[in-house]
Amino acid sequence: LASLPIERRNAALQAVAERLTDGIPAIMTANREDLDDAEQTGLPSPLLKRLKYDESKVEESVRSIESLIGQEDPLGRVLSRTELDTDLILEKVSCPIGVIGVVFESRPDALVQISTLCLKSGNAVLLKGGSEARRTNGILAEIINEAVTAIDGRFTAAVQNLSTREEFRALLQLDDLVDLIIPRGSNELVRSIQSSTKIPVLGHAAGICHTYVDEEADLDMAVKVAFDAKCQYPAVCNAMETLLVHREVAADFLPRMAEQYVGAGVELRGDEETLKLIEGRAASMNDWSTEYNDMVLSIKVVGSLEEAIDHINRFGSHHTDAIITQDEMRARDFMDRVDSSSVMWNCSTRFADGYRYGLGAEVGISTNKTHARGPVGLEGLTIYKWKLQGNGQIVADYVGSDAKRFTHRKLI
Amino acid sequence: LASLPIERRNAALQAVAERLTDGIPAIMTANREDLDDAEQTGLPSPLLKRLKYDESKVEESVRSIESLIGQEDPLGRVLSRTELDTDLILEKVSCPIGVIGVVFESRPDALVQISTLCLKSGNAVLLKGGSEARRTNGILAEIINEAVTAIDGRFTAAVQNLSTREEFRALLQLDDLVDLIIPRGSNELVRSIQSSTKIPVLGHAAGICHTYVDEEADLDMAVKVAFDAKCQYPAVCNAMETLLVHREVAADFLPRMAEQYVGAGVELRGDEETLKLIEGRAASMNDWSTEYNDMVLSIKVVGSLEEAIDHINRFGSHHTDAIITQDEMRARDFMDRVDSSSVMWNCSTRFADGYRYGLGAEVGISTNKTHARGPVGLEGLTIYKWKLQGNGQIVADYVGSDAKRFTHRKLI
Repeated sequence: LASLPIERRNAALQAVAERLTDGIPAIMTANREDLDDAEQTGLPSPLLKRLKYDESKVEESVRSIESLIGQEDPLGRVLSRTELDTDLILEKVSCPIGVIGVVFESRPDALVQISTLCLKSGNAVLLKGGSEARRTNGILAEIINEAVTAIDGRFTAAVQNLSTREEFRALLQLDDLVDLIIPRGSNELVRSIQSSTKIPVLGHAAGICHTYVDEEADLDMAVKVAFDAKCQYPAVCNAMETLLVHREVAADFLPRMAEQYVGAGVELRGDEETLKLIEGRAASMNDWSTEYNDMVLSIKVVGSLEEAIDHINRFGSHHTDAIITQDEMRARDFMDRVDSSSVMWNCSTRFADGYRYGLGAEVGISTNKTHARGPVGLEGLTIYKWKLQGNGQIVADYVGSDAKRFTHRKLI
Repeated sequence: LASLPIERRNAALQAVAERLTDGIPAIMTANREDLDDAEQTGLPSPLLKRLKYDESKVEESVRSIESLIGQEDPLGRVLSRTELDTDLILEKVSCPIGVIGVVFESRPDALVQISTLCLKSGNAVLLKGGSEARRTNGILAEIINEAVTAIDGRFTAAVQNLSTREEFRALLQLDDLVDLIIPRGSNELVRSIQSSTKIPVLGHAAGICHTYVDEEADLDMAVKVAFDAKCQYPAVCNAMETLLVHREVAADFLPRMAEQYVGAGVELRGDEETLKLIEGRAASMNDWSTEYNDMVLSIKVVGSLEEAIDHINRFGSHHTDAIITQDEMRARDFMDRVDSSSVMWNCSTRFADGYRYGLGAEVGISTNKTHARGPVGLEGLTIYKWKLQGNGQIVADYVGSDAKRFTHRKLI
């Protein structure tokens, strides 16, 4: 796969898009059966909604594939080129990671999205979806496989669908063969994967995001942004869970903010100082490290920027945190010292997303400290190799008293 | 540490260089005591040699630090800048990884090298050296600490020396606090670390490197390069362990090559076809996956470029592999499809090294498939964060029928 030119990889993606469109009736039938089963076993309605993969969703997947075809080739990019000596040229070139294992819950569109991202980036992928979607995932994997192998036999086995949990568990032990695991699903799923494999895991277990309203904040802006961060879509990882407010502005800001939240039905949990200013439940220590994913918000008054940074680094999940302030120095300090994958100044944490960041489709959001951090697009599915081209050079010539010298001239 | 400007970090490095020079008598005394103990306990002489840290080695460390001061700041580099919308600017900015644990065997200069690389890149480091060097390591860590804290109190605890194996074992369990482990030492050390921590480990367990002499090779060049790859310094990870030769040139090439090797005292272990052409021991299956680190070489005749690539991907350690050929297409194919951190064309595998690659000092050589691969310099000690700067933007404005649209204009 690593040596297939971009034209072949894009042709494979085009074939997938076409066969998906042709396959809509068969996909609908399979999905209908999965849905019927799920209803009978009493799957909760939000999960049923995610399991549904109808004509409009297939069309959305097809549009995503077409946009992916338009994206630049992530492979073969020369990241640096150095002349080590005359006719001894070193290149650092992007290449696929290799074999990627993906486990995802419910949404069948994840199968299409991730396998097409892997095809574009020259990786082989083994997928395991939720058992409630097994018929839908089965036919989607079949369609993708038929499409790509018709383009080039070398795509055989590029996309493989695992049907049992046991198969995926076995995969997690193959750290000499599998290079990366990407879990897409609940925090529990991610944590359980992280603790049961030696293979690097790309993702995030929790999204405990903060907005800090500084003493130098524009309070009108703060109300607007903090409302969006909590309420625009509270069920997702980049929604705010804790609001930190500087003591100097708390009395002005909190009553106005609380009015908005209460109007929208947000349950407020405050520290002692907060509850002197607004009504709400008392927050326990536990609240500072809880991801509600719901219309619940914890609020704390802090005495300084320092205290806000410390609170975020201690209780947060290193996902996305924002400061609202008109003071650039304080904003820069916050953004340098908050140890999170995304740090924001005067805008909503909800912007932390591959599509909004302009990365195209997203593999997921990573809170890892190595490889890829924050929203991860195609680039996170690549690594690089070093290519050294010479004309017979040997190291012995560069050692000793009359040794040749390296030029180390940076060409790119 | 992440927010200390480069001037402070370089001043700290300058102070380390000066105090090391001043500390030479004390370092010598401590090292002499370590050496005496080691001699008494019968440490083998190659290890004694590595343990020795005399005046000239301190001076070498000081020169390395001065060269490190001259290197570009690895932090705060804007890797990309995108306008998401008017006054909503996204930057991807390099930053330190965080807390790094390093375990190394014997050579005390590793302590100086790694801790100064970490200081330059804004990382905190916890070091554990071999117990045979405990006095030398102790005084080096003390000197470094005194030097950096005199420059800025924020360097307190930036470099910490662990004195017992138990402390390091405990560190390996702190995957919520420690971001990266770098082991420098034997393959056994690296493997034991890899299997006992969930923290990402940067390094390589083995260096089973190949040179493949293609049917289109310039045989004079092949003899010269394959000799260097094996003999120039056989004890290191980038030395060749297996020579692959295309059948078409084997009868011409192998007798000439063997003469050179035998003259230099290399023990040859060949497959059946090889032993029809030259003298040597029969190679067992085991030989193909053995890192001799010694004047021993396994040799195999292959029928095609394909077979050579398959052999390398199957038996190699994904470290460094070279092809000797005059045919560019075949060379490109080899370099694309051999899945190793460094792939080379018409030069010696011995070039795979941070200094020779022009990276400055090297943290180590990584065979990982994520984060950093091949020789790793300062850049491998950094990651990035996303910084989004707005003026009150909220996601709700970008959703729905009359939504604002992202511009996604690439600025860098």
